[in-house]
Amino acid sequence: MDSTHYDIVGLGNAVVDVIAPCDDDFLVGHGLAKGTMRLVDEAAAEKLYRAMGQTTVVSGGSAANTVIGAAKLGCRAAFVGKVKADRVGEMFSHDIRAAGVTFAAAPAAAGPPSGRCLVLVTPDGQRTMSTYLGACKFLGEDDVDPDLIAAAKISYLEGYLWDPPAAKSAFLKATDVAHAAGRRVALSLSDSFCVERYRDEFLALIRDGSVDILFANEHELHALYETGDFGTAVAQLRDEDILGVVTRSEKGALVVTREEMHAIKAFAVEKVVDTTGAGDLFAAGFLAGLAKARDLIDCARLGALAAAEIIQHYGARPQTDLQALAAENGLW
Amino acid sequence: MDSTHYDIVGLGNAVVDVIAPCDDDFLVGHGLAKGTMRLVDEAAAEKLYRAMGQTTVVSGGSAANTVIGAAKLGCRAAFVGKVKADRVGEMFSHDIRAAGVTFAAAPAAAGPPSGRCLVLVTPDGQRTMSTYLGACKFLGEDDVDPDLIAAAKISYLEGYLWDPPAAKSAFLKATDVAHAAGRRVALSLSDSFCVERYRDEFLALIRDGSVDILFANEHELHALYETGDFGTAVAQLRDEDILGVVTRSEKGALVVTREEMHAIKAFAVEKVVDTTGAGDLFAAGFLAGLAKARDLIDCARLGALAAAEIIQHYGARPQTDLQALAAENGLW
Repeated sequence: MDSTHYDIVGLGNAVVDVIAPCDDDFLVGHGLAKGTMRLVDEAAAEKLYRAMGQTTVVSGGSAANTVIGAAKLGCRAAFVGKVKADRVGEMFSHDIRAAGVTFAAAPAAAGPPSGRCLVLVTPDGQRTMSTYLGACKFLGEDDVDPDLIAAAKISYLEGYLWDPPAAKSAFLKATDVAHAAGRRVALSLSDSFCVERYRDEFLALIRDGSVDILFANEHELHALYETGDFGTAVAQLRDEDILGVVTRSEKGALVVTREEMHAIKAFAVEKVVDTTGAGDLFAAGFLAGLAKARDLIDCARLGALAAAEIIQHYGARPQTDLQALAAENGLW
Repeated sequence: MDSTHYDIVGLGNAVVDVIAPCDDDFLVGHGLAKGTMRLVDEAAAEKLYRAMGQTTVVSGGSAANTVIGAAKLGCRAAFVGKVKADRVGEMFSHDIRAAGVTFAAAPAAAGPPSGRCLVLVTPDGQRTMSTYLGACKFLGEDDVDPDLIAAAKISYLEGYLWDPPAAKSAFLKATDVAHAAGRRVALSLSDSFCVERYRDEFLALIRDGSVDILFANEHELHALYETGDFGTAVAQLRDEDILGVVTRSEKGALVVTREEMHAIKAFAVEKVVDTTGAGDLFAAGFLAGLAKARDLIDCARLGALAAAEIIQHYGARPQTDLQALAAENGLW
């Protein structure tokens, strides 16, 4: 029997997205840097929520979005994250299980409420996020089931896990277990500010063999290598002994190793509504392709297709049958 | 000073919509009649929720959707409804206030949780609803502020208010106060099953002068007059001494009085995603037009435009600037 029970297991912050449109002045007025994610405490989250317009609430979380996208592409997927036993936690748990993803972690009975991310979407489709981590802060080593990690072809970890202090140990435990079982580990850099906070640690993970596959967008790659020049950053990435995937919004994506480099075009979209989850879904498509042993170009095209779907509506969970969409585009 | 402080005050069930796509087999498997609304208790709501896919959560409620649409078209609007002081109630209250609608009612401190409506959307865009009324059941006469009703040009009441027993008295009080102040009262028939439940009472309201403006879709009109023939039903409606507005989905709408009859085309839409709120938003546009003293044809065109916006995305709250949309279409 195949000991690989899962294609992908994701580790990440379990949050529900609370989304509202806003104009650029609103961001300025609240001191928010467009396109970034910042951490806020509960009082700041409540204050910002009161100022926001009508909201749409959809389960989110970067790695959670990714494993759900992969599941919608036919992958066997699991997720590790921490919610509290409250209404928001129930919603997160319901939604991820409804997508067919294994999510076995017991919710916290006490402590802070489940995490939420306030997402402000400007008319250009850019999203600006304020995350209240809440119960996510209590994700720790004990939440990582070694059998689950060892049974997954790829463990996918979000850089945001570096924010809650205990999650880092969960991240490192997963990495060790995965490699001991001969599996691959992927890391998403999450956000350029996140890279600023943890640059040295992320570079160490890349260079000490903890990470086999790296997902970054242009801004994150620039932040990682402290350069404003894309060519320089890509050259540095190619020097690392990993598979690098760089997403570039409407400019498509670049897949690089030491030996190979492939540029992939973005899929045309009618209207960009909300870019939340674009990177998460790119990773979903890419990893689904890898799990199915597709070549790197097809992996990236699957990523680009899933990203194109997600940016045409609010929220970072697919609203379309991704497998049918992939089939329509000759990718499944 | 103008004693009309509001264009529209809506009375209705305050619920949050929990929306998920499903296929027709799912409806059959759960014994749900497509396109209708049924009332469920909390246990049945939980059971159905567990079986539903990934959800999108957006504030809803028929009359609430309508006053929000009217507010987005520049009307001064208020809402009367009952929530509990819980997370769902907070969301409903936040969202309606964020739209600029006055919502002063104090949330219930005890009793059942805030109401929610589980909305299943089939690939044809039809919605099938299971409503757990919860705190809505405690809307009563005391929640109707006579000064608020008297200060509004139009009081808009949803037929669903006939379901929670105490809300009926709130409805009738509002009707009396509005007429005593020389205002108009509009009623939406809500749903054909709702009409089946309360046909005689609705006909009495129409015939005893309680209702000045009636909103119905084709199915509801057929149910009201117990006929499958549209012409017969319309002829009966014209015999009532009221302003009748009949919505007919892609066939547009009909506005009738004893003296006049106008047929209005539907606006073209690219793709119908979710028809939830189509009738609510038609009423919003129509009433906004009436409040601004526009002619009946323009009122109906505003209604058709607002309905076209709402069916192109999940949820019954506008995601587009309705006033700008109306201006683009020469209606504002």
